[in-house]
Amino acid sequence: MRLSRYFLPILKENPREAEIVSHRLMLRAGMIRQQGAGSFSWLPLGKRVLDKVCRIIREEQDRSGALEIMMPTIQSADLWRESGRYDAYGKEMLRIKDRHERDMLYGPTNEEMVTDIFRAYVKSYKDLPLNLYHIQWKFRDEVRPRFGVMRSREFLMKDAYSFDLDYEGAKAAYYRMFVAYLRTFTRMGLQAIPMRADTGPIGGDLSHEFIILADTGESQVYCHKDYLGFEVPGEDVDFANDGEIAGIVEKWTTPYAATDEMHDETAWAAIAESEQVSARGIEVGHIFHFGEKYSKPMDAKVTGPDGKEHFVSMGSYGIGPSRLIAAIIEASHDENGIIWPESVAPFHVALINMKPGDAGCDALCEQLLAAYENAGKEVLYDDTDQRPGAKFATADLIGLPWQVIVGPRGVAEGTVEVKNRRTGERDVKKIEDLLAMVEKAA
Amino acid sequence: MRLSRYFLPILKENPREAEIVSHRLMLRAGMIRQQGAGSFSWLPLGKRVLDKVCRIIREEQDRSGALEIMMPTIQSADLWRESGRYDAYGKEMLRIKDRHERDMLYGPTNEEMVTDIFRAYVKSYKDLPLNLYHIQWKFRDEVRPRFGVMRSREFLMKDAYSFDLDYEGAKAAYYRMFVAYLRTFTRMGLQAIPMRADTGPIGGDLSHEFIILADTGESQVYCHKDYLGFEVPGEDVDFANDGEIAGIVEKWTTPYAATDEMHDETAWAAIAESEQVSARGIEVGHIFHFGEKYSKPMDAKVTGPDGKEHFVSMGSYGIGPSRLIAAIIEASHDENGIIWPESVAPFHVALINMKPGDAGCDALCEQLLAAYENAGKEVLYDDTDQRPGAKFATADLIGLPWQVIVGPRGVAEGTVEVKNRRTGERDVKKIEDLLAMVEKAA
Repeated sequence: MRLSRYFLPILKENPREAEIVSHRLMLRAGMIRQQGAGSFSWLPLGKRVLDKVCRIIREEQDRSGALEIMMPTIQSADLWRESGRYDAYGKEMLRIKDRHERDMLYGPTNEEMVTDIFRAYVKSYKDLPLNLYHIQWKFRDEVRPRFGVMRSREFLMKDAYSFDLDYEGAKAAYYRMFVAYLRTFTRMGLQAIPMRADTGPIGGDLSHEFIILADTGESQVYCHKDYLGFEVPGEDVDFANDGEIAGIVEKWTTPYAATDEMHDETAWAAIAESEQVSARGIEVGHIFHFGEKYSKPMDAKVTGPDGKEHFVSMGSYGIGPSRLIAAIIEASHDENGIIWPESVAPFHVALINMKPGDAGCDALCEQLLAAYENAGKEVLYDDTDQRPGAKFATADLIGLPWQVIVGPRGVAEGTVEVKNRRTGERDVKKIEDLLAMVEKAA
Repeated sequence: MRLSRYFLPILKENPREAEIVSHRLMLRAGMIRQQGAGSFSWLPLGKRVLDKVCRIIREEQDRSGALEIMMPTIQSADLWRESGRYDAYGKEMLRIKDRHERDMLYGPTNEEMVTDIFRAYVKSYKDLPLNLYHIQWKFRDEVRPRFGVMRSREFLMKDAYSFDLDYEGAKAAYYRMFVAYLRTFTRMGLQAIPMRADTGPIGGDLSHEFIILADTGESQVYCHKDYLGFEVPGEDVDFANDGEIAGIVEKWTTPYAATDEMHDETAWAAIAESEQVSARGIEVGHIFHFGEKYSKPMDAKVTGPDGKEHFVSMGSYGIGPSRLIAAIIEASHDENGIIWPESVAPFHVALINMKPGDAGCDALCEQLLAAYENAGKEVLYDDTDQRPGAKFATADLIGLPWQVIVGPRGVAEGTVEVKNRRTGERDVKKIEDLLAMVEKAA
């Protein structure tokens, strides 16, 4: 992509309304534009990151056996009356009347609707397990939306819902999502630690928040140092093997880990001080087993192997992709801007032409652009007539993993400079070496 | 994908509420579920088609130089007051009050919001041309939604908006979209004919509807037979070459073509009867140049090369992917079900195991499944214990382009049967020949 034909409205000033670094950087890098209280447009650079994050989420949901659907944003109030939540939900629910004065609402979540889909079609335990997810916009009318896409009113959410015959089946489904979440966050360059969450009146221990550590995190969290060394299961993990999956979950739930809310001073004190990690954290996912909470009032049941009818045991599993992007930035930036993990970077390479119009620089840039694109790498080619200083600042701000800098002196010497955004390391490379390297990566 | 682990709720009966064939077949094939008046969930099979349709739209928008963004569904009423449309729009607009009693609305379209984005950042003609699009859910509160996803209240729409310095620039932008639309529909296996549409008070001739011919179409259309033989521009079409693009548009707008609304009996009578095509049609896209209609009231202007300020000249370009899927089915089905064009088929191959549990059938199916997936082909493997007749009926109903049928007799003879869904042609193939063919396609 040529920057001269792109839409990248960089802000030079720090926007006053932004209280946290991710909000500030997303505005400055031209990723988002605020359209109203807690409402954002995703501009081209932001949209690319959102797509990459969603693709990883989707791949890992699919791998674990979940199936993607798409439910509408607007729901009928009747469904929520069935579950009893229409009155219980409070003012965060955006309530709407249509032209026929029917009560509708903008879905803040989808337990009721997905249970309605389930009960319409599934009648036998033979069709279980089933896990349906979608990635759809939600609306929660927060009193005071803030922190940009970290706490907005309209936000994207991946919500999955599992249906099983009994508790044992539901637990296995829960464990599969647990492992899928570990893989999802790792692939985005994040270290996410599962921490037990409050199960409230449901009880049991099947509720975990996935927390990433970031100095600017919203809450205090506590965990054992062991977590920092744990290996995340690879692509070859067998989701059909309940024993293997349970083993992974056991490993990842054994050492101490708790949010402020669930913190237990006695258990904490029993850990050697050198093994304690007390840090700031950001919640990036939440999984929750709630059993028959919706299946019972909504009459979602299947015939079991015993010939009797059973209310299905359910769980829900959420990740907010829009919020997650802010969390990635909170965990990965420096004073010059964002530092994208390779897997979610909007482009892989910033190709910087120091002197557009110079025949040698132009030709080499075109050659490199073609070579990278041939190799399946995405390039943002800065072919504008900005000064080099401004180009470097933009490249640092938008945080692409690699900067390839082409100037007249290098062209004369047959070299280009390659900068790693994360380490800041600069490397002068012979043109033919760089081209060979790119080709090899194809 | 194994059907035993998939969620494909086939309906055996024709749903009474479905008045048109696409609605009936989408419900019967387990693609969608109605959630309320004009509101649908997309089940796994439907979601796959929706994704494929959106991918093609996106690729052709990108190829033509448009840039993807994502605007929120909920908009502030204030923007619409600026353009004067808040009062003008009528009851189709879903109006909402948030918890602070602020007037909001569910976007039926996005001219105002995208103009607001534009005016916030773009100040000079040097940053033009610009075309921003998004694929987002819209809501229009139709009095009487019907025909399934063909005329629903919540629907997906790709809407693009072009910004140019003057009419000439806007016309070139319009032409690029015109050509992108030709390519988009062709890639989905559709023959779409551009027909002049009413420009109302805006005037001029830059408004076209893209109409596909289908016996069950909603309206009467008239065109010259020449259109049926026109070739659609290939991937190598150069969108940077205004002359080339204008030439294509000229070719595609010269012969007579009109919807009922714009039909001119005199011009029609001048065409030899043998060259007249009078048929039913379905609108699948609409492009429209509206000049300064929004830029003027919303004060969206840029500095021109003359140093003066100019209101930008705009156009908008819509395709409804959800509606489009219904149109594809209207144009491509038979009495047994849907017949998907290869490019938007939810899977490429229905692999039918006639006797699951038979070691030979199972082993061969696994081998074929692996071979196809290795070759990048998507397979729905019917490994269920349904009877063969039911399996064939399902395969015909969901309309995958190819059926590969594995039975014990064939296994003994070293053959499988391959059926082309569109032609109905059946072919007995040696297993090694089929495997070699699949491998070659990889």
